[in-house]
Amino acid sequence: MCQLLGMNCATPTDITFSFSGFAQRGGGTDHHADGWGIAFFEDKACRLFIDHEPALTSPIAQLVKHYPIKSRNVIAHIRKATQGAIELENCHPFMRELWGRHWIFAHNGNLEGYRPVLDGVYQPVGSTDSEHAFCDLLQGLRAMFGASGPANLGEVFEELLARIPDIRRHGEFNFLLSNGQGLLAHCTSKLWYVVREWPFREAHLADMDMSIDFSQGTTTEDRVAVVATQPLTDNEEWRQFAADELILFENGLPVRKARTA
Amino acid sequence: MCQLLGMNCATPTDITFSFSGFAQRGGGTDHHADGWGIAFFEDKACRLFIDHEPALTSPIAQLVKHYPIKSRNVIAHIRKATQGAIELENCHPFMRELWGRHWIFAHNGNLEGYRPVLDGVYQPVGSTDSEHAFCDLLQGLRAMFGASGPANLGEVFEELLARIPDIRRHGEFNFLLSNGQGLLAHCTSKLWYVVREWPFREAHLADMDMSIDFSQGTTTEDRVAVVATQPLTDNEEWRQFAADELILFENGLPVRKARTA
Repeated sequence: MCQLLGMNCATPTDITFSFSGFAQRGGGTDHHADGWGIAFFEDKACRLFIDHEPALTSPIAQLVKHYPIKSRNVIAHIRKATQGAIELENCHPFMRELWGRHWIFAHNGNLEGYRPVLDGVYQPVGSTDSEHAFCDLLQGLRAMFGASGPANLGEVFEELLARIPDIRRHGEFNFLLSNGQGLLAHCTSKLWYVVREWPFREAHLADMDMSIDFSQGTTTEDRVAVVATQPLTDNEEWRQFAADELILFENGLPVRKARTA
Repeated sequence: MCQLLGMNCATPTDITFSFSGFAQRGGGTDHHADGWGIAFFEDKACRLFIDHEPALTSPIAQLVKHYPIKSRNVIAHIRKATQGAIELENCHPFMRELWGRHWIFAHNGNLEGYRPVLDGVYQPVGSTDSEHAFCDLLQGLRAMFGASGPANLGEVFEELLARIPDIRRHGEFNFLLSNGQGLLAHCTSKLWYVVREWPFREAHLADMDMSIDFSQGTTTEDRVAVVATQPLTDNEEWRQFAADELILFENGLPVRKARTA
């Protein structure tokens, strides 16, 4: 299956350290070499990079590792194809606009026999179960909140709790979703997170011999939550999501948790 | 005002040569240094790169100059802000999904007193007149062709002819629009194009001393149309669009032309 990486921060932060370890899993320490992608929110704007080359060798991944884009919400994905050919339109994350904001979605899992009835406002460009699920969720949110939208991501969280079970019964549905205001993470099988905050400390990557001392250059204002399919570092306290748990991260903290089954 | 660059090809072609000259206008030979962007279609997939740094110095522009992404439809834009702050969400091109394809739009001009009534299916993320126009056009196309869409871009061309005048009366409306199947280019004031085809020849950039001999490595199957606000080379036969002219390019050729006023 695929690998997910998400980041939600109190202040704009670059993800070069975590991404360096994560990218190793795209053809290096793991076999997920069927394309990759990463999306950075900068306020309402969103930059999405996708590539069908393995993350380990992709020139775009090299750029992302060395160009410190500061963002409060990031979603990345390394693909191991289950449904859909190895084509660029099947690379996660996927992007759509809703309520005047970009929404980004990446999925890890395999949904079998799942073809939602879509009314046409959102239609998949590629052929993955994942993009169908994204279109289905956005269509549901629009149906619930209309063209003007919800007051906050807390309301979206509640609506997702109601909508996830219908999709989840088709298979594993680990996903990351963001509109730039926070990060929604759902786990059916494998997802972990760590919160880094003042006074910070040194972190060492699990996938390569690289360390960074986060206590340098950070302040009490900074706080970062990192979410990943597998812990990215080997000397920090990663917490495992419960099965069927949905968590909303805002300002680098888990602010809502609930079970979807 | 801004600078537009478009490319439509019979076979997947890289745009590194044209983009090298074009990027000079983002802070080098011209003063359009308020961000830039470029979108590459690879079949149905689309890669969109935007940056608020000047195209001349942007690390992402360096990547685009040296990473030959092969594409049949490309749209690029260098911004000189008229409406909307210098923020990433105001950088063109803009992307939305319609009928299971990504659509890309970039605009050069200034639409005064223009705020279309949008029903909510497409809402601007930024504050530019340009993104409002894009949402307005897509909403109109969806209203005309429903959720299943038109048979081809020729039908979109005809519908645009009917819809452009309402927007154009607010000001200059030079734009490029693509869904990956062809390139639609509209000119109210300044737009040029050149068609390169067999047996090809050498081209020399107008904005920097750089030449390329397109006769090397090309075949009779290749054909490329390049559209730009100003001719990019100084030794080829560029043709100027007529005022208020809409042209549809497919397979590297202008296949439909009509006046919108």
